[in-house]
Amino acid sequence: MKAAESDFMAWMGSVQARMENALSRLLPAAGLAPARLHEAMRYATLEGGKRVRPLLAFAAGELVEAPAQRLEAAASAIELIHAYSLVHDDMPCMDDDVLRRGKPTVHVEFDEATALLVGDALQSLAFQVLSEHRLADDPAAQLEMVKTLAAASGSRGMAGGQAVDLESTGRTLDLPELEFMHIRKTGAIIRAAVVLGAGCGRPLPEDRRAGLDRYAKCVGLAFQVVDDVLDAEASTATLGKTAGKDSKHNKPTYVSAMGVARAKAFAEELRADAHASLAAFGERGARLRQLADFIVLRKF
Amino acid sequence: MKAAESDFMAWMGSVQARMENALSRLLPAAGLAPARLHEAMRYATLEGGKRVRPLLAFAAGELVEAPAQRLEAAASAIELIHAYSLVHDDMPCMDDDVLRRGKPTVHVEFDEATALLVGDALQSLAFQVLSEHRLADDPAAQLEMVKTLAAASGSRGMAGGQAVDLESTGRTLDLPELEFMHIRKTGAIIRAAVVLGAGCGRPLPEDRRAGLDRYAKCVGLAFQVVDDVLDAEASTATLGKTAGKDSKHNKPTYVSAMGVARAKAFAEELRADAHASLAAFGERGARLRQLADFIVLRKF
Repeated sequence: MKAAESDFMAWMGSVQARMENALSRLLPAAGLAPARLHEAMRYATLEGGKRVRPLLAFAAGELVEAPAQRLEAAASAIELIHAYSLVHDDMPCMDDDVLRRGKPTVHVEFDEATALLVGDALQSLAFQVLSEHRLADDPAAQLEMVKTLAAASGSRGMAGGQAVDLESTGRTLDLPELEFMHIRKTGAIIRAAVVLGAGCGRPLPEDRRAGLDRYAKCVGLAFQVVDDVLDAEASTATLGKTAGKDSKHNKPTYVSAMGVARAKAFAEELRADAHASLAAFGERGARLRQLADFIVLRKF
Repeated sequence: MKAAESDFMAWMGSVQARMENALSRLLPAAGLAPARLHEAMRYATLEGGKRVRPLLAFAAGELVEAPAQRLEAAASAIELIHAYSLVHDDMPCMDDDVLRRGKPTVHVEFDEATALLVGDALQSLAFQVLSEHRLADDPAAQLEMVKTLAAASGSRGMAGGQAVDLESTGRTLDLPELEFMHIRKTGAIIRAAVVLGAGCGRPLPEDRRAGLDRYAKCVGLAFQVVDDVLDAEASTATLGKTAGKDSKHNKPTYVSAMGVARAKAFAEELRADAHASLAAFGERGARLRQLADFIVLRKF
């Protein structure tokens, strides 16, 4: 393993461990009433996932010397929103999936009503975390962060992307329609992760913020393109979630729209574009560049 | 009709009209993509309900000369949380109800997946509204309002009360257990409505805030007791939602725990206690007193 790669892996491991710790502390204890709900909230959130969004928040935070404690809270809020969306997306009335992160989904392990409430309560907790910890020197800037996450989660962000996804099952989407869906479904929260991470440190000039935003847009889209490729090519065991379900459910994906080879080339273009967007940051952008590479080149 | 009563009815009508307007403006337009989701969000929120929580926010705001524009935004955030909770509570995996505010419930009029996303997106919108409008002179105080609403909505507030409700179906709850459930299920958001309304104006001294909080606690509990009585006694046509469903679903209520007569007496006690909590406000507390009367004496 090259030195840069091993340094990146060590950094990733330390952020992941830090997040596990922070989330465990921020989630209500499993014994606290209502105990079953709290147990299920912890089941849905802890010990799972690559924590891609928190990694993005931490990497963006490093650009602006953001204190780790602030980044932990901001990244936890993002991850709680992500966790809630997975619980609801897996429910029978949505994707009806039984496996997530190698474990039974929440409505399978508990029950449907609990899964519904788990998602609802995780969303509330995200906004509680974002408002009760000091994340920015200026409280008005922190209110702006709340607004960013709320807008990214809502009907013009993640929930809206999910609605388009539902409507498009069985239909053919052209590339602009696919992009409209994914910029909302996954892209909005990924962009929010970068914006919130950068918001925890010293303010950036407008052009740097624009570069960072372009980076986040490229990475968000690349993430989805790679997800579609993996769903088509990888196995359920490798993914820890049901593979091949896009084509089984007749869902439009980048693979169905452009084929595997062109989808891979597109992800590669987005990765190059993400790198280019960070040019003005010089050496400081190294972590975000490594993260873009990790997201595009991952095998799971 | 007495003059005070007619004045109260006029005030109530004007707040309700103002809220209809505000909510219609804050919700995404029905034609905006994803159109079906936005249409369903508007269906779930507009033209419905007594707007009890907004009325409480406005009445509390009048105590502190809060500007109406701020109250509109704060009360809209509260009402969006309430609307989301109704959509999710009516879903088949929860109360499985087909009628709400005299209309088919969202999952009946649209579909289950849409109902799930409508609730999710309405919750996000509540926090967006609460963070993107100026509600307090001090942005730090406004962050505190975000935290109040998030905590009231989450696993130790409304969603937690709902979880206890689920677990208790078919069981007998004693009075402390019933109160534990209702303080969360309905009480938490009602208290948040009063706190947020009061937060939109000039700051109150600690003892006045405590009095207001006691008022909100009494009214929140009274609201639920009266709800239980109405569910047992009123007709579906009067309520605009399915009547008698508590006993049909074998749910513990104040009526099942203490009988109709004692439940009515308990509501009356809570009303007196709510009035007493406002003593220090003198004449200024008139609106909140009228509102407590309205909530306890309502027939629908």
